[in-house]
Amino acid sequence: MKPLVYLDHAATSWPKPPEVMLAMQKAMDEAAANPGRGSHQMAVKASRVLFESRRVLSRLFQVHNPNDVVFTHNTTEALNLAIKGLLHEGDYVVATMVEHNSVRRPLEFLKRTLGIRVEYIPVDSQGNVDMQKLRSALSRRPKLVVCTHSSNLLGSILPIAEIGEMAHEQGAIFLVDAAQSAGRLEIDVNAMHVDLLAFPGHKGLLGPQGTGGLYISPSVDLEPFLHGGTGSQSEEIEQPAVRPDRYEAGTPNTIGIAGLKAGVTKVFELTSQRIYQHEWSLTQQIMDGIEDIPGLRILGPDKGEPRTGIVSFVSTEIDSSRIAFQLDREYGIAVRAGMHCTPLAHEAVDTLQTGAVRASVGIDTTAEEVELLISAVKNICGA
Amino acid sequence: MKPLVYLDHAATSWPKPPEVMLAMQKAMDEAAANPGRGSHQMAVKASRVLFESRRVLSRLFQVHNPNDVVFTHNTTEALNLAIKGLLHEGDYVVATMVEHNSVRRPLEFLKRTLGIRVEYIPVDSQGNVDMQKLRSALSRRPKLVVCTHSSNLLGSILPIAEIGEMAHEQGAIFLVDAAQSAGRLEIDVNAMHVDLLAFPGHKGLLGPQGTGGLYISPSVDLEPFLHGGTGSQSEEIEQPAVRPDRYEAGTPNTIGIAGLKAGVTKVFELTSQRIYQHEWSLTQQIMDGIEDIPGLRILGPDKGEPRTGIVSFVSTEIDSSRIAFQLDREYGIAVRAGMHCTPLAHEAVDTLQTGAVRASVGIDTTAEEVELLISAVKNICGA
Repeated sequence: MKPLVYLDHAATSWPKPPEVMLAMQKAMDEAAANPGRGSHQMAVKASRVLFESRRVLSRLFQVHNPNDVVFTHNTTEALNLAIKGLLHEGDYVVATMVEHNSVRRPLEFLKRTLGIRVEYIPVDSQGNVDMQKLRSALSRRPKLVVCTHSSNLLGSILPIAEIGEMAHEQGAIFLVDAAQSAGRLEIDVNAMHVDLLAFPGHKGLLGPQGTGGLYISPSVDLEPFLHGGTGSQSEEIEQPAVRPDRYEAGTPNTIGIAGLKAGVTKVFELTSQRIYQHEWSLTQQIMDGIEDIPGLRILGPDKGEPRTGIVSFVSTEIDSSRIAFQLDREYGIAVRAGMHCTPLAHEAVDTLQTGAVRASVGIDTTAEEVELLISAVKNICGA
Repeated sequence: MKPLVYLDHAATSWPKPPEVMLAMQKAMDEAAANPGRGSHQMAVKASRVLFESRRVLSRLFQVHNPNDVVFTHNTTEALNLAIKGLLHEGDYVVATMVEHNSVRRPLEFLKRTLGIRVEYIPVDSQGNVDMQKLRSALSRRPKLVVCTHSSNLLGSILPIAEIGEMAHEQGAIFLVDAAQSAGRLEIDVNAMHVDLLAFPGHKGLLGPQGTGGLYISPSVDLEPFLHGGTGSQSEEIEQPAVRPDRYEAGTPNTIGIAGLKAGVTKVFELTSQRIYQHEWSLTQQIMDGIEDIPGLRILGPDKGEPRTGIVSFVSTEIDSSRIAFQLDREYGIAVRAGMHCTPLAHEAVDTLQTGAVRASVGIDTTAEEVELLISAVKNICGA
């Protein structure tokens, strides 16, 4: 059964533009051979699908060379490649308290196995990073600075251009997690001093699940995360040095990547600015509608402040998972409840014990759907 | 442009059964939320898609608990998870000379970084493993034995049940690379003493690219390869212990996995035995047709011997890539030429300098198509 109102876009955008499935169907019919592993025409066509998708992504992020964009299974794999491919024993890393577990867990893994040191810079209850503390951490010259572009719990937007500049001044490599921002916020990797940009294909870029990627600055060499066949230099025991082969061992998700290109093309058509504006307006409408419910607290930036399409809230009266469950079963409204894979952010806004209800909107979400959410939340909370 | 005759099934099977795209379409329409990360009904449905796919795969490989099957992006990722998740400094590993680069490169990486020791057991020109040498290597009690089920260059079939038993007698963990065998050869992980089984979704299992997996015996605990969000126990800094979450961080390829289930269902319908028999007959037809071409040498098992649907050959007269190129451009026949990501196998059959032409058949390949191949190869070779 489809939900009447889908408000879980921060997990995966849905429905996808019809062009996405059409592109997947076409790729399945015409280009589903193994790219880079045969000179026959269907294999060449599969390679072209990948290259064209790299090209639109490069245009979106202002990347000069499409081969600096490598495809991964999801953002998590991109972040694992970036973090594990870069860091060595004893390295010092600066991150923030709003990082997702896909950043924190790889870092904690390397802390345990390689003895890296990690400092998580605090954020206030609006999701703003403590720039004073950040500056002081940067003065200790970390190897890597990791920063999410937008918190998946709070919707707050971090000043990555400014942080990137500060990081570069101290000689650090700057990794941005664009899980919530790609397709919604402008990203210019050069202007923003981003060396590594991890992004999902299936959220704001409107592509299918099973896609994502990492931009790797030409000045950064990562140890490959996956070792295996590349179709190039296959007599060598090491991964080839040439990109993207170096980072894309094994058969890629050609069909999904074809769908991703269609998704990104849709983003260009709508423009990130308009998508952001549409989603932001809906978040303001949600906040207007639920802010006066007794016992309810909205997390993240104040009304009127920038945020991506996420509104999370908690109630002192009713458990978060109960609210989400009732929204789903009684009103056909899909939201996410509980812990949002970002425990330090929950700690920062004091919801580690309660979790939170997260409603997240997308390009097709309407004001009418938001009204349904508001009235349902009011009913559930007895307001 | 589609090839008239697609003979690159060992890279990716094509076309897929129509049920595969239909299942993907249905999943995209109804179940494309983020499984395990929301309690809403579409997320639950997405979880169900994954579970049902795990269940058919478990049935295929005689796995007791579907949660011991974890999904990966492709076989390469599955092999990386198995190899890197198991081995530690100084471990001793036994593999064969017919392993793919997706086994060899991770092993060589760990040789360089962790100082593991690796022995590659020789094969003869038919692709048979030297059992004497294997026995002697096993007596040195390796931590891990890795064996491909069928060579991707030679089509030869390795006696994994026997090797598994020998490996277990010496207390080794047994990893099988089923890239060429899954869906074609019977695999019973318990009867064959297989502790870890890496398989692709997009070859013999007839699913889409972007899918694959690893069976992990309940007696083996691997360090997760991907660290990140799991939707479960997200307050913990470590990956959860519970399967499959432990090994599936990040958003899975729900749509692709829905397609994979449809592919495996088709395999059950056709039966592996009949698929193998069909493909084997076609390989015999190819061998009959081209064996007398002057200067042409067919690699791997003799006629009449078991092999998967692969016939590779070299010519002393014409370069392999030239043959493949002409087959493609002049006859519309798609094969693969060059090095096949398995340099030690090329060494074993003395084709490291020449590469080889590989024709590989699938469930839809017909005797008429094979006749077209034979007559084209004859023409190109001037026979």
